[in-house]
Amino acid sequence: MPTADLYELYYWPGIPGRGEFVRLVCEDAGAPYLDVARRPASEGGGEAAIVRALESLPGLPAFAPPILRAGDLVIAQTANICGFLGDRHDLSPGTDGGRAEAMQLQLTISDLVAEAHDTHHPISSAQYYEDQRDAAALRAAAFRDARLPKFLAYFDRVLQRSGGPWLLGEACCHADLSLLQALLGLEYAFPHAFARHARGTPALLRLGDRVAARPRIAAYLASPRRLAFNEHGIFRRYPDLDPS
Amino acid sequence: MPTADLYELYYWPGIPGRGEFVRLVCEDAGAPYLDVARRPASEGGGEAAIVRALESLPGLPAFAPPILRAGDLVIAQTANICGFLGDRHDLSPGTDGGRAEAMQLQLTISDLVAEAHDTHHPISSAQYYEDQRDAAALRAAAFRDARLPKFLAYFDRVLQRSGGPWLLGEACCHADLSLLQALLGLEYAFPHAFARHARGTPALLRLGDRVAARPRIAAYLASPRRLAFNEHGIFRRYPDLDPS
Repeated sequence: MPTADLYELYYWPGIPGRGEFVRLVCEDAGAPYLDVARRPASEGGGEAAIVRALESLPGLPAFAPPILRAGDLVIAQTANICGFLGDRHDLSPGTDGGRAEAMQLQLTISDLVAEAHDTHHPISSAQYYEDQRDAAALRAAAFRDARLPKFLAYFDRVLQRSGGPWLLGEACCHADLSLLQALLGLEYAFPHAFARHARGTPALLRLGDRVAARPRIAAYLASPRRLAFNEHGIFRRYPDLDPS
Repeated sequence: MPTADLYELYYWPGIPGRGEFVRLVCEDAGAPYLDVARRPASEGGGEAAIVRALESLPGLPAFAPPILRAGDLVIAQTANICGFLGDRHDLSPGTDGGRAEAMQLQLTISDLVAEAHDTHHPISSAQYYEDQRDAAALRAAAFRDARLPKFLAYFDRVLQRSGGPWLLGEACCHADLSLLQALLGLEYAFPHAFARHARGTPALLRLGDRVAARPRIAAYLASPRRLAFNEHGIFRRYPDLDPS
């Protein structure tokens, strides 16, 4: 088991962002990790740590954070890291087929997260929201009215099909943890639309509650390690994008 | 080995789309697969086959095609299917860490593909391109000028780091196959921008040539099974989005 090693997580400090999906797996697994960029700059942290990691970590280069260093291995891509950690820490099914199912759900969450991000940045991540507000209003409307309910109905259907209590049935997997973060992010960014649509998927909300009540997750959510959503991250509350 | 079973691929007929990434892995592996929706409607094919698959295949529901049926297992998400097939057919590294590296590359290709798609559909996939042309022109400019060169430089760096001849070094993996499709799609959709930027990454173009020259891939590309790019798919040639 690799838990004797301390994982190193490289992700932008100051936002939960995609790093949070990795943190939730580490926290639920009880796997110690160093959140490198959240250390003081004087101790090698800060945004400069991410720039350095992208440029000079050994092994396979990463296109973007989050990046996980696990001993000699350096891997990137949020869903991939979550699956890798899930496999190592009993948060994945025990068969190749089951692991593929968990990864399918994880990647569908990734798609949802990317679409939620693009509601405020439909043109370019390199430009300010204020410079793409018109397109953002259009994309957010399409997201609220069509995509958000479609994704919620999908995960609700997965849960109905498995019979619960978790997405894949009897055992919690990394995708359950990630879905909690997605649900919380959607509720933060689109309080009105989320309330409207999630009313139709009460079992899904109970799944979120169930994840949040897992002892290590509950302790984490109440700890100072947990970063609040804010308007620099993926899930942003811009009233123009979620009219009541 | 599951190769005695015939895989069933469910993907929209008429476009290469995301199904093509799955086809390339099956073709290179020499794994027989039934391309269900490309059969005549009278034999259970056509778009109706995809609608039926989304509604009524057993097992874990899929959010969207492609869907792969492998015996009792039904899985979705392009990168996930490619990784699953790669693991089964000697197109993945042999270690957990190596497989995570291949999946990292595969997911970075997925990101590139999604961004290429959104150049013509920055607002909503449910609306026509013609109804989102203004936003498309802006998003395509950002893609051409910033994202496309960044992705090309990234994969070129991966190749330099591994020493080649493949992305991860000595052995070809599913991500090499997928990168060929991405490169061909980018060249189709953005002939001017691709020519400008790919000039700086000649080793990457040679990697594409190397994949295309693999015997089974070469035979496939020359076969009627290979669908041409067109303006209904992910990679579309709209001259407005790629001025010379």
